[in-house]
Amino acid sequence: MDDLYNHIDEHANHYIAALQRLVQQPSVAAQNVGMAETAALVQEMLVGIGAEARLYDTRGGYPVVYGEVAGAAPKTLSFYNHYDVQPVEPLDLWQSDPWAAEIRDGRIWGRGTSDNKGNIAARVAAVDAYRQVRGGLPLNVKFIIEGEEEIGSPHLEHFTADHADLCRADACIWEFGGKDLEGRPVVYLGLKGICYVELRARGANQDQHSSIATSTPNPAWRLVWALASLKGPDERVLIPGFYDKVVPPTPEEVAALERMPDNEAKRLDHLGIDRFLLDLTGIELKKRDYFQPTCTISGIESGYTGQGSKTVLPSRAMAKVDMRLVADQDPHEIFALLRQHLDDEGFSDIEAILLGPEKPARTPLSATIAQVVVEAYRELYDAEPVVSPTSAGSGPWYELCARFGIDACTAGVGHARSQAHAPNENIYVDDFVRGIKHICLIMDRFARS
Amino acid sequence: MDDLYNHIDEHANHYIAALQRLVQQPSVAAQNVGMAETAALVQEMLVGIGAEARLYDTRGGYPVVYGEVAGAAPKTLSFYNHYDVQPVEPLDLWQSDPWAAEIRDGRIWGRGTSDNKGNIAARVAAVDAYRQVRGGLPLNVKFIIEGEEEIGSPHLEHFTADHADLCRADACIWEFGGKDLEGRPVVYLGLKGICYVELRARGANQDQHSSIATSTPNPAWRLVWALASLKGPDERVLIPGFYDKVVPPTPEEVAALERMPDNEAKRLDHLGIDRFLLDLTGIELKKRDYFQPTCTISGIESGYTGQGSKTVLPSRAMAKVDMRLVADQDPHEIFALLRQHLDDEGFSDIEAILLGPEKPARTPLSATIAQVVVEAYRELYDAEPVVSPTSAGSGPWYELCARFGIDACTAGVGHARSQAHAPNENIYVDDFVRGIKHICLIMDRFARS
Repeated sequence: MDDLYNHIDEHANHYIAALQRLVQQPSVAAQNVGMAETAALVQEMLVGIGAEARLYDTRGGYPVVYGEVAGAAPKTLSFYNHYDVQPVEPLDLWQSDPWAAEIRDGRIWGRGTSDNKGNIAARVAAVDAYRQVRGGLPLNVKFIIEGEEEIGSPHLEHFTADHADLCRADACIWEFGGKDLEGRPVVYLGLKGICYVELRARGANQDQHSSIATSTPNPAWRLVWALASLKGPDERVLIPGFYDKVVPPTPEEVAALERMPDNEAKRLDHLGIDRFLLDLTGIELKKRDYFQPTCTISGIESGYTGQGSKTVLPSRAMAKVDMRLVADQDPHEIFALLRQHLDDEGFSDIEAILLGPEKPARTPLSATIAQVVVEAYRELYDAEPVVSPTSAGSGPWYELCARFGIDACTAGVGHARSQAHAPNENIYVDDFVRGIKHICLIMDRFARS
Repeated sequence: MDDLYNHIDEHANHYIAALQRLVQQPSVAAQNVGMAETAALVQEMLVGIGAEARLYDTRGGYPVVYGEVAGAAPKTLSFYNHYDVQPVEPLDLWQSDPWAAEIRDGRIWGRGTSDNKGNIAARVAAVDAYRQVRGGLPLNVKFIIEGEEEIGSPHLEHFTADHADLCRADACIWEFGGKDLEGRPVVYLGLKGICYVELRARGANQDQHSSIATSTPNPAWRLVWALASLKGPDERVLIPGFYDKVVPPTPEEVAALERMPDNEAKRLDHLGIDRFLLDLTGIELKKRDYFQPTCTISGIESGYTGQGSKTVLPSRAMAKVDMRLVADQDPHEIFALLRQHLDDEGFSDIEAILLGPEKPARTPLSATIAQVVVEAYRELYDAEPVVSPTSAGSGPWYELCARFGIDACTAGVGHARSQAHAPNENIYVDDFVRGIKHICLIMDRFARS
């Protein structure tokens, strides 16, 4: 593989510049910022490496950028990525412009560097390097790059229904991946599902002087009481039926968890907290992290939130509730249970809106692609790879892979302090370059497997 | 009084222009916007009517603008006002620029038109008119115009301690007042107290990907649970001792409430709601509105509050809690009870900050100034005045009047749809002009009482 690695090292600046250009193009799906421009740019990148690439309409959502590059072997490897990124707010916590893709202290800083533009750029670069050095790919490659992952992939099911043929592959490399706090590469073999809900409460027709709160309904109180009915300080979700379909981990999965290294002290230090919820440690902490669902307030807003005091009675209140699901919870069933619970508890006045439901999915520990990715990590990195039966995150793994029987696993250029979804998102320049080599090695090995 | 009234009608445009100029000067104490400029402008207005006027330092807060105009009689009437206004957010709900003081459909629109610059301008105009027409005032007048009423007058106690002599008067006309939904002038004889608290919760040192919510503390949940421990859907405050010092209304006060006209249907229609809290109506509704304390969420914020979904685990959460107090609740005692309650309920991690405490205070129904103001309203307005034993609002009535034994009551140019503290604040031009006459008549009658 040295021919490929040398080429990648020699052209590293070119590949880094391509990543910077991609990061510098904002693409916030949640805020409808720069989406068309970014889809066009990604299509241009695919065409630039010889792919037949086009945009596919998703019937109501942002287009999927799809591209194929034919190779020598009959096998097909797909790359799932997304060109949308998280919103950048709060802006004042960024140390440099989130859209500048500034290189500082050996890292590239900016929204999307880790999640997920760094991986798009590394995969495009790997295909480019392979073709430049060897004149062609060892297998067929498909790029499936959607524009709505950060808002829950609400229209991807239209793409998979309309274009099942385009989705078919022998294996899929998932959009993210990278190193843990100890610098060990981590391979995830699944994702949690998600049921993301916006709750809305209304009171008077506009904000009022708070002196009339004696007798005028307050939507902020309604919302707080409704939220408090969902989960108490013991962290147990109170929605009846919420846990009914939760499948406990198998002995093999628990064994995999036990093989995963402990890094509790580093995680606590990184987060700036004294202890984990419920004082959990060891295998119990891992079981909760990987095999338990969550119910999280991701946002809440009502009334006056500026400096100092304003004596106002709010007319509206809103909360975002993010529920991560595990097998076999179904997001639509969970949403129905939530609605029923709110009605039963006297909160039928609270409006609930389902945003981007996703099912949980997992790849078997024994899958070939998992072995190939782990081996490739082992060869390129100094530390022993960690295999995780599932990530705590979510995405359309079921929709794009599990439902077609495609095994998937992660491989990416991020690290544990990449700050995905937070201010100061970043990746290491070295990881980006090594990530390009990693994809080359995976293509080479999977073609021969 | 016709000489005065004619002069006021002839110079109405001049007085209206002075009000517009004052509204056009932003002065948001909570946001430290335009405060020095506004204090200087108000001082200039007082100097313009022959007052000895100066700014008094309040040891850490915005200055008090104080002015005296000597008159014929030994009696002294003070006017309490404030030159600060509420924040204007949310800006998108205003139909015209909040700082434009636009005249439209017979009203002047803008932040502070009702609360409280309309009353400053009307009182200044009344003194001007009296001096122009009659060559001098019938009694001594004091203007005490502070800059922190909307943030709870936190430094006014320094002014009253340092300058008790300046506060002394035979009676005080309070800062606000005006007409109810039926167009009846309302005279308030007291105020509720207030204990306005900001609650803050902290989690990880920055916002995180929500997937780690399995084991990472969420300050939004902490805050929601703490808030839910303060009051439940039955609207009863759960802080132990909160109600201990609440004095029930006297039979005279209940009789006064019963004399107050009902306007429940109009109020409901104005607010756009179907019914009052707890389905209250009639005397029970009035007793709650005027003689019961409140505990109100005036603002809450955490995490992502924009459009769509963002899967974030917030690192901070904040709420503003506005508690209106009735005799004999003390805001410092209430704050201590709140702190104790939070600690007892397991929320010692929640920080509580007291912003602008104020004691409740009431003037006797029989006070001379109350009779004078009511009589003057009766003479100038078509509708029978309503006497209310207290307003549901708050202010430094105790600090500036009750503690010096000064009787106070309200008289102002607002109306029930003035939208004080909300978007589209406004007063009627006619009410402003009549309000000038009203103050002239009050000075005349109180001098002779």
